[in-house]
Amino acid sequence: MTDAARARELDAADPLAHLRARFLGVDDPSVVAYFDGNSLGRPLRATAQRMDAFVREQWGGRLIRGWTDEWLDWPLVLGDRLGAIALGAAPGQVVVADSTTVLLYKLIRAAVDAQPDRREIVVDTDNFPTDRYVVEGIAAERGRVVRWVETDPVAGITPAQVAEVVGPDTALLVFSHVAYRSAFVADAAEITRLAHDAGALVLWDLSHSVGSVPVSLDAWGADLAVGCSYKYLNGGPGAPAFGYVATRHLDRLRQPVQGWMGRADLFEMGPGYEAAPGVRAVLSGTPPILAMVPLGAGLDLLEEAGIAAVRTKSVLLTQHVVELADAWLAPLGFRVASPRDPERRGSHVTLCHPDARALNARLVDAGVIPDFRAPDGLRIGLSPLSTSFAEVHRGMELVREVASRG
Amino acid sequence: MTDAARARELDAADPLAHLRARFLGVDDPSVVAYFDGNSLGRPLRATAQRMDAFVREQWGGRLIRGWTDEWLDWPLVLGDRLGAIALGAAPGQVVVADSTTVLLYKLIRAAVDAQPDRREIVVDTDNFPTDRYVVEGIAAERGRVVRWVETDPVAGITPAQVAEVVGPDTALLVFSHVAYRSAFVADAAEITRLAHDAGALVLWDLSHSVGSVPVSLDAWGADLAVGCSYKYLNGGPGAPAFGYVATRHLDRLRQPVQGWMGRADLFEMGPGYEAAPGVRAVLSGTPPILAMVPLGAGLDLLEEAGIAAVRTKSVLLTQHVVELADAWLAPLGFRVASPRDPERRGSHVTLCHPDARALNARLVDAGVIPDFRAPDGLRIGLSPLSTSFAEVHRGMELVREVASRG
Repeated sequence: MTDAARARELDAADPLAHLRARFLGVDDPSVVAYFDGNSLGRPLRATAQRMDAFVREQWGGRLIRGWTDEWLDWPLVLGDRLGAIALGAAPGQVVVADSTTVLLYKLIRAAVDAQPDRREIVVDTDNFPTDRYVVEGIAAERGRVVRWVETDPVAGITPAQVAEVVGPDTALLVFSHVAYRSAFVADAAEITRLAHDAGALVLWDLSHSVGSVPVSLDAWGADLAVGCSYKYLNGGPGAPAFGYVATRHLDRLRQPVQGWMGRADLFEMGPGYEAAPGVRAVLSGTPPILAMVPLGAGLDLLEEAGIAAVRTKSVLLTQHVVELADAWLAPLGFRVASPRDPERRGSHVTLCHPDARALNARLVDAGVIPDFRAPDGLRIGLSPLSTSFAEVHRGMELVREVASRG
Repeated sequence: MTDAARARELDAADPLAHLRARFLGVDDPSVVAYFDGNSLGRPLRATAQRMDAFVREQWGGRLIRGWTDEWLDWPLVLGDRLGAIALGAAPGQVVVADSTTVLLYKLIRAAVDAQPDRREIVVDTDNFPTDRYVVEGIAAERGRVVRWVETDPVAGITPAQVAEVVGPDTALLVFSHVAYRSAFVADAAEITRLAHDAGALVLWDLSHSVGSVPVSLDAWGADLAVGCSYKYLNGGPGAPAFGYVATRHLDRLRQPVQGWMGRADLFEMGPGYEAAPGVRAVLSGTPPILAMVPLGAGLDLLEEAGIAAVRTKSVLLTQHVVELADAWLAPLGFRVASPRDPERRGSHVTLCHPDARALNARLVDAGVIPDFRAPDGLRIGLSPLSTSFAEVHRGMELVREVASRG
């Protein structure tokens, strides 16, 4: 199961294998294995072409007319596409805008402010840092309390833990669908149900799942969600984020950053703010149009591949890494710190090792690019659309080689 | 003064004339005159090249390593460059991030929250809509009062008006340096002095001045400023904004959107938020790197030209429009609704006409692209780096022709 022939077999059987050639940089001999597409996805060749065409023809050619021609609708049009292709969200609930942090702030504020009688915001200790910082800041400024759930760094947040903390004083729970360290996949449907039973709302951070693990926001009954587009959606460094507000909350929840792009009758420019109907009210400032161009190309590819096929390949990729880690790296002091059950594992595998920080630096020098996560984690990210099994095999061989040396 | 020979003379004498060829689209015969560079500046040819190189070599080649190589510092590096080239701001006070609206929210909140004993936020009725909406929202959520200054739609905000409203209860004044409708240039130094005499802070919105009218934030003694980069800085549709916090306030003012990019020791990812030292604490989410590429090219060009030369040309361009308007358009019912004193006029000229809305649509069809501003304004925007006097002449001839037709 660990020889190169096995990787070749997996590539030969992979129905998405041909899509790897759509990406720029996959033929760069200096990068033996790119294991950090879960931090920054590779650019598509189509993105380079579209960006150039956008700059020359749309921006340079349509000039200001581009806004009323179509750009003003991009946040909602791309949001609807993203909802259909990757989020399980019906139209009219998703916008592309801002950064994940700013959208977290806006939507958490909206949820908390709408429930003045519920004092607690629940968040887990292993949630992504920016989620925790936003929650702490909002709790402090709005006179609320943060209720921490201590999560196991491998097992992640469970329905049992949620059942224990949620109650009549819970305003909102903020969790990641896929944990950024362990890749644990939370049982979002069950956790959402438990929260609703207690009258609380849930916000899901989809940053580490969108584009690699199927998401079913409407089916889960989710209230709010955010996520970034620069990982598995290949949106580019600092690409805009997305936000989801369930239809039933659109009239009720109000985010605090009142800007011209979220106002009813934008170009009236009149006195007084009145929120636009629907999910447009989540917008504040001028939408980052240029930065949305790569996301359009990323969504086209994801639609072509289909999220179910992407997930199937993702499971095979992470399984391959787990097998190689068990065979080659466990004897060298590595420990798999991601769930072994593929159902509960997202699209990366974290390998813990006491010297992970130094190893990471040496691996990068050797052309294998994982990601170090303090204190001792080496994240092996596996972007299903741009990663081959042969690449995984070569990269893991180098991890073994580099770790053996020292 | 109104014949085409005059425009040719002005072009021949223009030391910046050769820079027009650096822009994409200036040779597009379907656009007779682009008068809306003050809403969306044209792309530079260099931007198309740099964007393509960035996608292929930086994003595609450096991949995640780009972040620690240099991208993490882009918000501050570009901020410092912008400060030096266009804002009169010493290093360490400017960041590029978010949208103008989000930065307005963050910095106004910071200023208001730091002064719990001062109840009023002063803003003028003719300030840009998003500024007004943000102020109203913050006043409502923080239990403050908006004190409106009724500004004359041509004369703009004056020191005399400020002296009348500012007092011991004033926390913050929010004004535009150049008014978005009339192009009136506020006396920022004197207004800032008056505010400080009363112990209040001032936030300047530089969106309509940056890159066309010299700004001297440090010399004014300004406290806070924001602005956008998609007008005279040619950053592209929805390009990131910038924010300025004077050095003396950096330790004292805290913006509320606590995100990982504004935290001390970002990659520790530890518990609890502690603001990064300096202006980095203004950041919240992942910086929009890809969207900053055009700004780099725009700043290079502005540095090459020099803001003083840009301003000189801007005054000549707006003067040319005023002269042609007086000669050709006044008889057709137009009125110049921008200051006639070039010292008090930014880089656009607003012409009022009862049928401005319909005229604007007909002009766009005829290849002249101004901007309509309700209820009756036609804005003639003049980007000094990409606009020729011949273009102005041709465009104004068409305005006369289209308006004459009735």
